[in-house]
Amino acid sequence: MIAVLKSGTTPDQVQHLVAWLKNMSLDVHISEGAEVTVLGLIGDTSRVDMDLLKSLDMVETVKRVSEPFKQANRKFHPNDSIINAGDVRIGRGYFAMIAGPCSVESEEQIIEVATAVKASGANILRGGAFKPRTSPYAFQGMKGEGIQLLLKAKQATGLPIVTEIMNISTLDLFADVDIIQVGARNMQNFDLLKELGKTRKPILLKRGLANTLQELLMSAEYIMSEGNENIILCERGIRTFETYTRNTLDLSAVAALHELSHLPVVVDPSHATGKAKMVSPMACAAVAAGADGLMIEVHNNPSCALCDGAQSLTPQQFDDVCQRVNRIREAMA
Amino acid sequence: MIAVLKSGTTPDQVQHLVAWLKNMSLDVHISEGAEVTVLGLIGDTSRVDMDLLKSLDMVETVKRVSEPFKQANRKFHPNDSIINAGDVRIGRGYFAMIAGPCSVESEEQIIEVATAVKASGANILRGGAFKPRTSPYAFQGMKGEGIQLLLKAKQATGLPIVTEIMNISTLDLFADVDIIQVGARNMQNFDLLKELGKTRKPILLKRGLANTLQELLMSAEYIMSEGNENIILCERGIRTFETYTRNTLDLSAVAALHELSHLPVVVDPSHATGKAKMVSPMACAAVAAGADGLMIEVHNNPSCALCDGAQSLTPQQFDDVCQRVNRIREAMA
Amino acid sequence: MIAVLKSGTTPDQVQHLVAWLKNMSLDVHISEGAEVTVLGLIGDTSRVDMDLLKSLDMVETVKRVSEPFKQANRKFHPNDSIINAGDVRIGRGYFAMIAGPCSVESEEQIIEVATAVKASGANILRGGAFKPRTSPYAFQGMKGEGIQLLLKAKQATGLPIVTEIMNISTLDLFADVDIIQVGARNMQNFDLLKELGKTRKPILLKRGLANTLQELLMSAEYIMSEGNENIILCERGIRTFETYTRNTLDLSAVAALHELSHLPVVVDPSHATGKAKMVSPMACAAVAAGADGLMIEVHNNPSCALCDGAQSLTPQQFDDVCQRVNRIREAMA
Amino acid sequence: MIAVLKSGTTPDQVQHLVAWLKNMSLDVHISEGAEVTVLGLIGDTSRVDMDLLKSLDMVETVKRVSEPFKQANRKFHPNDSIINAGDVRIGRGYFAMIAGPCSVESEEQIIEVATAVKASGANILRGGAFKPRTSPYAFQGMKGEGIQLLLKAKQATGLPIVTEIMNISTLDLFADVDIIQVGARNMQNFDLLKELGKTRKPILLKRGLANTLQELLMSAEYIMSEGNENIILCERGIRTFETYTRNTLDLSAVAALHELSHLPVVVDPSHATGKAKMVSPMACAAVAAGADGLMIEVHNNPSCALCDGAQSLTPQQFDDVCQRVNRIREAMA
Repeated sequence: MIAVLKSGTTPDQVQHLVAWLKNMSLDVHISEGAEVTVLGLIGDTSRVDMDLLKSLDMVETVKRVSEPFKQANRKFHPNDSIINAGDVRIGRGYFAMIAGPCSVESEEQIIEVATAVKASGANILRGGAFKPRTSPYAFQGMKGEGIQLLLKAKQATGLPIVTEIMNISTLDLFADVDIIQVGARNMQNFDLLKELGKTRKPILLKRGLANTLQELLMSAEYIMSEGNENIILCERGIRTFETYTRNTLDLSAVAALHELSHLPVVVDPSHATGKAKMVSPMACAAVAAGADGLMIEVHNNPSCALCDGAQSLTPQQFDDVCQRVNRIREAMA
Repeated sequence: MIAVLKSGTTPDQVQHLVAWLKNMSLDVHISEGAEVTVLGLIGDTSRVDMDLLKSLDMVETVKRVSEPFKQANRKFHPNDSIINAGDVRIGRGYFAMIAGPCSVESEEQIIEVATAVKASGANILRGGAFKPRTSPYAFQGMKGEGIQLLLKAKQATGLPIVTEIMNISTLDLFADVDIIQVGARNMQNFDLLKELGKTRKPILLKRGLANTLQELLMSAEYIMSEGNENIILCERGIRTFETYTRNTLDLSAVAALHELSHLPVVVDPSHATGKAKMVSPMACAAVAAGADGLMIEVHNNPSCALCDGAQSLTPQQFDDVCQRVNRIREAMA
Repeated sequence: MIAVLKSGTTPDQVQHLVAWLKNMSLDVHISEGAEVTVLGLIGDTSRVDMDLLKSLDMVETVKRVSEPFKQANRKFHPNDSIINAGDVRIGRGYFAMIAGPCSVESEEQIIEVATAVKASGANILRGGAFKPRTSPYAFQGMKGEGIQLLLKAKQATGLPIVTEIMNISTLDLFADVDIIQVGARNMQNFDLLKELGKTRKPILLKRGLANTLQELLMSAEYIMSEGNENIILCERGIRTFETYTRNTLDLSAVAALHELSHLPVVVDPSHATGKAKMVSPMACAAVAAGADGLMIEVHNNPSCALCDGAQSLTPQQFDDVCQRVNRIREAMA
Repeated sequence: MIAVLKSGTTPDQVQHLVAWLKNMSLDVHISEGAEVTVLGLIGDTSRVDMDLLKSLDMVETVKRVSEPFKQANRKFHPNDSIINAGDVRIGRGYFAMIAGPCSVESEEQIIEVATAVKASGANILRGGAFKPRTSPYAFQGMKGEGIQLLLKAKQATGLPIVTEIMNISTLDLFADVDIIQVGARNMQNFDLLKELGKTRKPILLKRGLANTLQELLMSAEYIMSEGNENIILCERGIRTFETYTRNTLDLSAVAALHELSHLPVVVDPSHATGKAKMVSPMACAAVAAGADGLMIEVHNNPSCALCDGAQSLTPQQFDDVCQRVNRIREAMA
């Protein structure tokens, strides 16, 4: 960490600051230039409060030279991580094709969708049981019952399952769930992250709507610092001024996260765009950008002609996406 | 709620959709125009999934005519609410001057600051015990012990106290806390909101970093829908592209929230700007915009010359802010 | 266009508003519902000031049913447009591989780069002569002399050239330029757009840093409304909170613009990411998303070891990108 | 300027970089630490291309220690500037109350509004003649004729006038205009800025919709670098995710610009909020934040009952705002 002091800082002030920093077990290397004094802080700077340091009158600027995340950092873990979920591996060339309905609605529905997406090439089943909704009056999911139905679909198809947790008090219900999802709105629910860090379950951690990649990696670090290294990062669109799509899918996040971290990165084009028609081009683009997996909403509701235009794909549309994705994966091999 | 159908929608499709809507206990008023068909949905539209409706192929656009929040809505509660915290009232002309340190550090510190801010005119004491930090390696607060020290300061000064909760499992520790704060990062931690809705404690609900005012009011609605109507809204700065200030204080939120809701609105200029020098002008501006209160960081650390430039004010600086604010409040009376 | 009136609007007020709208040569279809009155405006609503209409006391909301752009609109021009630049065609399956240095620096440089990128598969040469810089003290480009050097490179290689205009008063200098670029900061320089609309030159129109797709299409419409239909849209990254990349490349813009408009869409991964290492994955992703072309910075400065890490690719790196892109294009065919 | 080099940079590379920097007439002070090497660049660093420097492989980070703007910088000009427009002074305690209609519509209209706002305390008249509109089909203003009408209103009332320029080719029409406005969308139209820098007219420079304060000051620097020091900065709202207001008024910009620059800062609450009801609280807040002036839309259209809710105030509402603003200014004196 580098701290640049303002010109006009007195030797006395510098000494004061250096003493304070050394008190935090840091080594301080002082470099006095013609115009500015630069302090190089050496040691475990992850504990230094940058905001406080920056706010000091004598400090012009503070800059981290090393990233504040360690366990998620590729520098200390050069090889891609592989995460195991049931029999499925994710990362380092192993690809996760996660598909399923937005919400679990019935046993018939979830088994039918699971069977269909498996036939097209999906290797993990998704389905929402606990649903975070902006409105308290909206459907909040089937909760524990939804998880039971997912487990039946897992039994029927052999697909490992992923579903979202909203509250650590429900953790017992996730005992047989293969991957626990942390949703975008809980990305900085630090207490939830810490508790999940005490489990050994794979965690699919979604990026928050207005969060930076560093913040996402710091949230991964929260989980890893408690001992759970099984993290799958997920880009699912960020909030921008564009209104044509629900969110804006940030595919450069895939390349950037691969530079910064060894953790696998999957992409959710369904939530990012909110439009069924855009899922296919964005799924292809995600794969071309190097994503380690996709997470795609598929419904199966032949009796409900109403839902044709929704964000979810039909099994036929999903099958088409799988084929396109495979062709691109082959071209890149 | 209004749904505009695309031109070219067949009578059969319209009938299908209307049947589906009526199935949700809504009355549907159909108006066929030369170019478009408009459906007026009457009844409890707060349960309608707008995103699903919008995503249907035949639907051009969906627009709420009434806001999706009810209990927080000024339309159904025209008078300003007053929230009681200990002996202090907030709203409808009653002003909350909340002050105190960012974190509780020691008994001596918190009592000294509390005594000083009370002397300058503060009527509520703030202090962080559970601290949400981006990094798992940063100081996470004194936790339960911090709350104990706040209670000592309350006893010493008579000031009611406000402090942040991060996890509902710690609720017991807040039994004697007067106002429970929900931080910006937990604004959409819906399970936490619901649990706080089951208490009758005043809740200070901070706006999320990238959340709209409607989303803030929907989060208030989560708490109110469980029976707790004691909500104080707090504008604390939103994330923008500007980097000179830590966040961007959105003071039009004060006027807008007063139009939309009956709940009191307080403003936190310390977190919003991250700069001690800017607290005074922004505190004055907030009051001129009609804020029902301010929340200001004040520290008391005479031995630590380092901290002079921090976001926190010294007691002397806080005293000066109080005087300026009072002059503006008088000018507006 | 649909205008929803507030409940409580008097018949007299409705009549007043309808008369005002009819005065603008619009037909108005009134539909009175139990709770709201909806006006359907039929005719040339592109002239209606939505903001004014929205701001009327009696109006709850206003919604366009048809997009405010016409000539750029796919609805009125279902087939993809093809733009001709010299012998090169862009759109409807014809792919533009635009490459060249950020700035033209010397005759030797531009000819060397042009020759190299042509050998790798580029079919259009880019190079900045007029450079929009945030600082008045930064290098502002070689201006007219730069265009002369581009023309020499065009003569040497046969590649058509694209370069940026900043001021209509320099238009004469662009007589032999094949494609005129409008930069992101001039996307809403409406007077410049109108003047370019009076030419018949192909215009490469870059999306502004914080502009929506509709705003981009309205800027295309400015050019087209003056008679010039030769527009190439360019996604070059938008401003978000992410700082790891210079901007955030919005690849869903490719799919969305293809839905909304018949104009070709090219993608500039160099400016979007600001990092040479990320150009290759983002170029591949853009192609997989359906882009009609790429615009990539390539420099050739073997004597300057300093520049190796810059946003520009070396000719060798560019050659590698071309091969990857071709493999993906083949997989998609 | 400070450049921090990556660990592992070889002495040879360092020497290479230092030679390149010295070639730009910079002194370079090298400080080698245990982990990093820091270069201090001394001299006219405003000419250094930070983006290029940052993009070098060996460079970890680059940080300006001094701002890249000079003439607009308070450090080199500690006293507040005063700008003269006709007989009116702006800055250093002199307050500009700018009012008038959005667009000039007729001689009767502009003289009536001018007379009314002068009676309430306005000292400068605003009115749009050239109107930047998102749509080419929307009303583009009365142009030259509009300026003639403004001049008649100036003659009738003695108020100096401010109106927007969109194109330097129309400069002759502005010969008798007292203040030339540069709109938000032209804030980075650098060629326009340079040309205005060659005049000596006061320029009211509006902040762009998604621009930082530093970018605003760099645009002021463009004008000043050509010799025109008569700049009035204007905060008029930035684009955020909030949709209740048209833009988000950033009042901390007032305090921040006063810290960074000696130029006066006026605030436009009309465009920022887009709602007449919010103009009064935001005008008061702007004054409490220390603004040097306000710019408020006032119309006078008694025959058009339709316009009552618009963003523009009636003369009566404006009179009320003037009184409130005066009371706050007195309280702050």
